[in-house]
This record gives sequence, C-alpha cells and structure tokens, in this order.
Amino acid sequence: MFLQPVPLEKSFRLINHGPTVMVSAKHGGVENVMSASWACALDFSPARVTVVIDKSTFTRPLIEGSGQFALQVPFASQAQLVMAMGESRKHNQEKIHQAGAKLFYQDGFDVPLVQGCAAYLVCRLLPEPHNQQAYDLFIGEVLAAWADERVFRQGHWHFDDVDDSLKTLHYVAGGQFYLTGKSRVVAP
Amino acid sequence: MFLQPVPLEKSFRLINHGPTVMVSAKHGGVENVMSASWACALDFSPARVTVVIDKSTFTRPLIEGSGQFALQVPFASQAQLVMAMGESRKHNQEKIHQAGAKLFYQDGFDVPLVQGCAAYLVCRLLPEPHNQQAYDLFIGEVLAAWADERVFRQGHWHFDDVDDSLKTLHYVAGGQFYLTGKSRVVAP
Repeated sequence: MFLQPVPLEKSFRLINHGPTVMVSAKHGGVENVMSASWACALDFSPARVTVVIDKSTFTRPLIEGSGQFALQVPFASQAQLVMAMGESRKHNQEKIHQAGAKLFYQDGFDVPLVQGCAAYLVCRLLPEPHNQQAYDLFIGEVLAAWADERVFRQGHWHFDDVDDSLKTLHYVAGGQFYLTGKSRVVAP
Repeated sequence: MFLQPVPLEKSFRLINHGPTVMVSAKHGGVENVMSASWACALDFSPARVTVVIDKSTFTRPLIEGSGQFALQVPFASQAQLVMAMGESRKHNQEKIHQAGAKLFYQDGFDVPLVQGCAAYLVCRLLPEPHNQQAYDLFIGEVLAAWADERVFRQGHWHFDDVDDSLKTLHYVAGGQFYLTGKSRVVAP
C-alpha cells in the first residue's frame, strides 16, 4: 500500500485541481459507491467540501442515514470503473466486484473506500436540510485524508514524472475525460 | 474574436473538468476581478454554479450589491494574470491593465469580462444569506455562456489538437497549476 496520511489543512489540495471523484457511503450494513463530477473544496480550516448528490441516487440515503461519506480521487487507470459507478441510481456492489475493485476501511472510520485510488477524504456530513433539498448540495467536514505517495508527497501532487495511468481524471460528458496534464509554476 | 454562444444546458461542461476560474463583478461603476479555485457546477437545468468568495475579498460586495457575477475560464497563457488576480482583497484594476488584459461586456449584460479567456458564464446571484454568511458559498444561475471556438465546439472541449497555451488551468497551491491534459474516452 502506498497510502500516507495527509494533514487536514492540506487536504483541500487533493481536490483543488478539479478532479472527478467517486463518493462512497455505508448505512445499515449497505455499502455503495457513485461517481460525481461536482465536488469542490469549501474551506481550509476546518477542512470542508461540497458535493452534489441527486435525489435519485442510491448513495444519498446512505449519506443521510449515516451522516458520513468519503470522496476518493481515482487514477486514470480507473476510468472504466468511474464510468460504471456513474450509474448512480443503482446499488453498484456487483459492478465494483466486476471491475475488479475492492472496498476497504481505514482504522477508526466506518466509511467504505475503493481500493487503488490516488486520494481519499473521509467526511462528516454537516446537515443543511435546505441545501440538500433545494440544491442537492451536501457539505462535509473532512475528518481524515490519505493520498498515494507515488503522486502526492509533502502536500503537493507530483504528476510530471509518472505514467499516464497514475494521473487523475477530469470528466466532461459522454464518457470523455481529460487527464491531469503538465505542471506549470508561476511566481506569485 | 473567437467567442461563440454556448447553450445554457451545455454550460456546465465549461467548468465540469474542474478548471481554475476568475470571478468578475461590477457595482456602482466599480469593476473587479479575482481568481478562485473553488467554483463548481451545481445543476444542469436551470444551469447553476457555486463559487466560494471570502468575506475579505474586494469582489464580494460587488456581487452582493449588483446581484450578478461572471465566471471565466482562463487559458494557460493567462496563468500570470490568474496569479495576479489571486490578490483577492484588492481592487485589481491596475493589475489587469499591467498584465495587458482588458475588460469587455457582452451585449445585454452589465458584468465585466476579462478578454481572451477560454469560456465565460454570466450569472445571476441566487441569494442564500445563510450559505454566504456561514460558508462564503455563493450560488448563481447561469444567464448566458460563451466559449472560444478554437477549444470548445458542439458542446465539447477540443484540447488535443491545440498548443499548451490554449489549454485550461487547474490550480493546486503556491503558484503551481496543472494544464488540462490528454483526452480519454471510455465507453459507458
């Protein structure tokens, strides 16, 4: 395993570049995973995120019931899995298995995570009924975060020296993604 | 000019891949522009977006006062300007000028736009005082959108055949961006 903890105050960097994520949750012993393009950092400290979860999704009542969810940032090599998990109305347990993916748990957190992703953020739901009902908008406080040290070290992504399979994904529509591209550093 | 209108129901695709944006607004004759990493699509129809705007920013009262703002998706060639506009507490008029950038207006919309960006979304603020106060979270309904036809045509980005300067930007931290990378299409 290549996972290393990421300090909470740096966890926004895991999604700051706008990658597509998968959202996972568990309630009453039922686990599920769905893909989501509309996840975003909301605050540095406390670390918070937003994610849009449609009322039709199988995962939404798991989040509302348990008060927890995780965002995971898939690698480009997982693009097929991300598309399969895009069938968000369904209980995707069989599809996860078919795709050769496995769920796992980090010690102390009863939120399922998809093995082999670039980064993970386990979140506590901050209930905001109006946002959830009117906008399908969920707010989470990040409780813990981890990233794959092959691509994220010392608080920064390092994509320039890895194979394309270890880049992250940026979804557009219709099965089309862009991989994370070249680094560019600009003096402030 | 290369700008072409983008149908509202396709406008989410302009930011779905998670690019860094610049936020612009005008109130009482005062124009400003600031950079923001935390902008995200919220709904397809009506097309809506979220954007996080700190209380310390110069632009926030312009949005609250006018009830309008724009998101623009800069090209990689504008990375230096994006960093300069990151000084969000300031009235950045002089910096825009120094950077050789110009503001312009589209017919019918009194919201300033930064010339030479890849895409634009002009939005009406949907006032949500609790979100704005507690989370610095602003919700906008997209009123009109445009994109540069060199990179966005028929509802899709076309980055694979353009120079790096015409890619979009994904900010991490400390002046470091990633350019939008290679396209990958996965059958659903």
